Amino acid sequence: MIIVMKPGATQKQIEAVEKQLQELGFHTHPIYGEVKTVIGAIGDKRMVKANNIVHMDGVENIVPIMSPYKLVSRELINENTIIDIDGVSIGGNELAVMAGPCAVESEKQLMEVAIKVKEAGAKILRGGAYKPRTSPYSFQGLEEEGLKLLANVGKETGLKIVTEVVDTRDVELVSQYADILQIGARSMQNFRLLSECGKASKPVLLKRGLSATIEEWLMAAEYILSAGNPNVILCERGIRTFETATRNTLDINAIPVVKELSHLPIIVDPSHATGNWRWVEAVAKASIAAGADGLMIEVHPDPSSASSDGPQSLKPEKFSDLMMGLKPIAQAVNRVI
Amino acid sequence: MIIVMKPGATQKQIEAVEKQLQELGFHTHPIYGEVKTVIGAIGDKRMVKANNIVHMDGVENIVPIMSPYKLVSRELINENTIIDIDGVSIGGNELAVMAGPCAVESEKQLMEVAIKVKEAGAKILRGGAYKPRTSPYSFQGLEEEGLKLLANVGKETGLKIVTEVVDTRDVELVSQYADILQIGARSMQNFRLLSECGKASKPVLLKRGLSATIEEWLMAAEYILSAGNPNVILCERGIRTFETATRNTLDINAIPVVKELSHLPIIVDPSHATGNWRWVEAVAKASIAAGADGLMIEVHPDPSSASSDGPQSLKPEKFSDLMMGLKPIAQAVNRVI
Amino acid sequence: MIIVMKPGATQKQIEAVEKQLQELGFHTHPIYGEVKTVIGAIGDKRMVKANNIVHMDGVENIVPIMSPYKLVSRELINENTIIDIDGVSIGGNELAVMAGPCAVESEKQLMEVAIKVKEAGAKILRGGAYKPRTSPYSFQGLEEEGLKLLANVGKETGLKIVTEVVDTRDVELVSQYADILQIGARSMQNFRLLSECGKASKPVLLKRGLSATIEEWLMAAEYILSAGNPNVILCERGIRTFETATRNTLDINAIPVVKELSHLPIIVDPSHATGNWRWVEAVAKASIAAGADGLMIEVHPDPSSASSDGPQSLKPEKFSDLMMGLKPIAQAVNRVI
Amino acid sequence: MIIVMKPGATQKQIEAVEKQLQELGFHTHPIYGEVKTVIGAIGDKRMVKANNIVHMDGVENIVPIMSPYKLVSRELINENTIIDIDGVSIGGNELAVMAGPCAVESEKQLMEVAIKVKEAGAKILRGGAYKPRTSPYSFQGLEEEGLKLLANVGKETGLKIVTEVVDTRDVELVSQYADILQIGARSMQNFRLLSECGKASKPVLLKRGLSATIEEWLMAAEYILSAGNPNVILCERGIRTFETATRNTLDINAIPVVKELSHLPIIVDPSHATGNWRWVEAVAKASIAAGADGLMIEVHPDPSSASSDGPQSLKPEKFSDLMMGLKPIAQAVNRVI
Repeated sequence: MIIVMKPGATQKQIEAVEKQLQELGFHTHPIYGEVKTVIGAIGDKRMVKANNIVHMDGVENIVPIMSPYKLVSRELINENTIIDIDGVSIGGNELAVMAGPCAVESEKQLMEVAIKVKEAGAKILRGGAYKPRTSPYSFQGLEEEGLKLLANVGKETGLKIVTEVVDTRDVELVSQYADILQIGARSMQNFRLLSECGKASKPVLLKRGLSATIEEWLMAAEYILSAGNPNVILCERGIRTFETATRNTLDINAIPVVKELSHLPIIVDPSHATGNWRWVEAVAKASIAAGADGLMIEVHPDPSSASSDGPQSLKPEKFSDLMMGLKPIAQAVNRVI
Repeated sequence: MIIVMKPGATQKQIEAVEKQLQELGFHTHPIYGEVKTVIGAIGDKRMVKANNIVHMDGVENIVPIMSPYKLVSRELINENTIIDIDGVSIGGNELAVMAGPCAVESEKQLMEVAIKVKEAGAKILRGGAYKPRTSPYSFQGLEEEGLKLLANVGKETGLKIVTEVVDTRDVELVSQYADILQIGARSMQNFRLLSECGKASKPVLLKRGLSATIEEWLMAAEYILSAGNPNVILCERGIRTFETATRNTLDINAIPVVKELSHLPIIVDPSHATGNWRWVEAVAKASIAAGADGLMIEVHPDPSSASSDGPQSLKPEKFSDLMMGLKPIAQAVNRVI
Repeated sequence: MIIVMKPGATQKQIEAVEKQLQELGFHTHPIYGEVKTVIGAIGDKRMVKANNIVHMDGVENIVPIMSPYKLVSRELINENTIIDIDGVSIGGNELAVMAGPCAVESEKQLMEVAIKVKEAGAKILRGGAYKPRTSPYSFQGLEEEGLKLLANVGKETGLKIVTEVVDTRDVELVSQYADILQIGARSMQNFRLLSECGKASKPVLLKRGLSATIEEWLMAAEYILSAGNPNVILCERGIRTFETATRNTLDINAIPVVKELSHLPIIVDPSHATGNWRWVEAVAKASIAAGADGLMIEVHPDPSSASSDGPQSLKPEKFSDLMMGLKPIAQAVNRVI
Repeated sequence: MIIVMKPGATQKQIEAVEKQLQELGFHTHPIYGEVKTVIGAIGDKRMVKANNIVHMDGVENIVPIMSPYKLVSRELINENTIIDIDGVSIGGNELAVMAGPCAVESEKQLMEVAIKVKEAGAKILRGGAYKPRTSPYSFQGLEEEGLKLLANVGKETGLKIVTEVVDTRDVELVSQYADILQIGARSMQNFRLLSECGKASKPVLLKRGLSATIEEWLMAAEYILSAGNPNVILCERGIRTFETATRNTLDINAIPVVKELSHLPIIVDPSHATGNWRWVEAVAKASIAAGADGLMIEVHPDPSSASSDGPQSLKPEKFSDLMMGLKPIAQAVNRVI
């Protein structure tokens, strides 16, 4: 941590800051510049009270040096985390593709999609039983009934199941049915939910918040790891920007940045990132080319009658075409799909 | 709702869209332009499946005409909502000022602040017992112990209590101690928490999410009202933008916009909106001048030792000066403080 | 400047960076932390090549300590700059109000507005002769003819004239007619135009760019001052964010921040900041309460027939009401209007 | 264009709006909904004065239906524009790669890079002679001397030359030396510069502004086309968002969106989009996979001594590796490089 003093800060003020830092357990190293003095503070940056030093006389601001997360970073573990779910791996050489409807609507709908996405090469079935909807008047999901349908279809097809959990009270129940617990973008900073999922026995797919920085996203993952669950899959699904032509802006840069900072696997959700099925193929290809470990894609047998997110869902045939188109891209970056 | 057809859409495609809309219960009115045809669809826009019509051949996009919220809008209730808490009113002629520490740390700290902010004119005490922190290693709050301290200090000073609830499981407990339930910015789209607070007997202070549009914010309030609780106070606390000189960007425009769209009271939190106590006074004054119904301000007896948000907390004397400075501003806009 | 080395950077790498910094004229002070080493580099930060040090082995990133501007900062000049234009001052105790149509359309229109805004208390007339329009098919302004109309109306009414210059080739011409040269938001980083206006004899009103940070804005002002023109008026006109309910988001925080960082006067344009005349009054009041030195407001005798920006223009009567309403706000912050 | 009336708008207000629209040359079609009436206005949307109708009594807002650009859109020309520069084509099956230093520093530097990037497969040499710099104290370019060096190196190596023009006064001069005129991100809405380049005989590479929507970007291109120059290459170079881990956020979605809306070629600048050479390779690959027609990449023989943008420049060997890595990606999307 570096404390930057104001121009004209007095020697007395500088010493007072040093004294305070030392009481907080830091070693201090002042550097006297031509205009400003800066004080290097060596020690554990998680001692957050140090931030309050900006209130001391003569202090201009504080610059953190250490990243605030540990368990998720490559500083501690350099080797890529590979998550194995009964033979389906995420983060390894083979790309993980999760596909299925936004919301579970019926057994018929789910089974139809499941068979089609499996044929096309997906190994994990997505489907929402609990839906976080911006309107209280929209369909909120089949809840436990939806979980049961997912589990049944998973059993029959051999597909693994990923589904969202939106309430701390449901973590245990969802864990009984799902293979992967999904934490949605709007819940990325629901810290209680993060902690509960950190105590669960299933891997967690953590979507990036609409306006979360990469650092905040990794901090959210840190919550899960620090609660005891090392199996976190990051999922970039687009961030909110000024652009309105698309539902969100896919932050493709985040892929190499996260790969550099963290050992956790990262996948991309091109359906939410674009909001329009016509653009899903292009950005799905881009994501794999950029180094993503997999994709999560919305597929619906009849998008024009979907109860949620119809506009961004692919028809099964389009999904199948996409999977074919991804093969040479995967090969070009030494991955298989 | 207006369906915009692509240039060159065929008559057959137009008729297919009309038919689908009619099946969904809409009346349709096509308008044939020089290049594009648009179809007006009359009916209840909450029938969300209509969005999926973008999948139909020849459709370019869909333009909603009705706002998606009802109970919070002035379309239904034009008169301003005034919330009365045992004689302290929010949304009326008198401005409501909520002040206190970010986190409840001890009885001594809380009582000291409470007495000072009351002397300065605040009628509501803020203080966090449950703290949503970006780091799992930061102080997470005193929890129920903190709630008890708040209730005691409230009783002794006569101040009303506002405190945050972060988990659906705690709504009942917090309702026993607090006069107002606060839903924080990160929870604005925790729809389950909104619903639970909608069933609670206490008024709800709903902070705007970091990247929530005004429409999404009003939709979140709609969740609470539609669950049965009409007493919602909106709180603008700054949005996330590209600017890094301040912690957030206070969206001062939101005040007149919300006043036009909704009958609910709106207050401003200048502490989070700026992130720096030096700028709190200026934007607090601005907020009142713009028509806000009150303020929520962080005050700490010793900000440099605060366990959370020290940099943006005012010392009690500064808060007292601010309250004095607000009087003529309030008067200038025909309000009292 | 602080150079942060990667965890595990070798002593050899650290020494190589120090050597390079010394060759660039810096003194170096390494601080060895538990995980990372940082190197303090003392010297003139405008030696930009130092940024390339991130390419050296073992370097993680670089943290600047000094602000990149000098002439505009309070580090050099602490006293507020007051600009005097023939008895009309900007930045002093009296608030400066600039009002008039977006575009100069005719002598009749301009004279009508000028008389009305003068009666209401404005001392400076705004009006565009050169209009930067997003569409090549929109009205682009009366150009020199417009400048002449402005100058004539200015002479007859005694109002000072502010008008935009959009092209380096026009600076001299516009300087002959206008009292203040306006640089629009879209030109804020037209560095050639900044330099030309820096050589002009007239004060410059510098609007903040749509997506410019406060630091970039002050750097743009630095261009003008460093070219020899000390008379710069900053104008906050809203920034681009994700919010679409308003044309822009007025960054009200910027007022106290700029006042702290710079000695230059700052005014606010509530017309562009909101994009809707219905919200102009609220944010105009807020701006003055926050400490702005004045306002720039669009007024049109018949907004529904305006050739540009009709939706955000006030009718003269509304402007007059607004000026009345601003008086007690100004008084509350010890200013006069 | 659709005019949305307020709930409760009177028949008289509706008729007044219709009358005004008819006077402006529109045909009108009112649709009476349950709560609101909307009026369809058929005619040329470029008659911008219609926007002012929001000032009329009873009007809530206006929804445009037609895109504001024509010449750049696929509505008029559906076939992809392919630009041919003496045998080097942009927008066709072969990908166009532009590489070279941010700034031209010396003949030696430029020739060294030119030879290397040519060997690696680039056909166009980039290099700045006029540099728009955020600081007036930074290196501003070699100006005409730089243009001459570019032209010479171009002649000797057979590479085509692309270089930025920042001032209307320089368009003619730069046109004499360069094969492609570059308009930088900060100049995207310098409408005078757009018009001047629209009159030039050379193709124009138009970078997207930092905070420009796709629509504004296409409108800027429309300026150039409407002035007579059909040869515009769009260049996505990252937009400004809240994320600070990277210099900008590459809007990868923009590639399929632009391809759908416009017939113009689009390339990507991964150097500016990331701001860090370590992430250039990943997003360069992603851009080609998403359907971009080419790349513009900064390459410098010794990035740590570059006079501008060193941190994001690749060394020639890295660029050569990147070009090798792009081959299978290009092939996977049926392109050649």
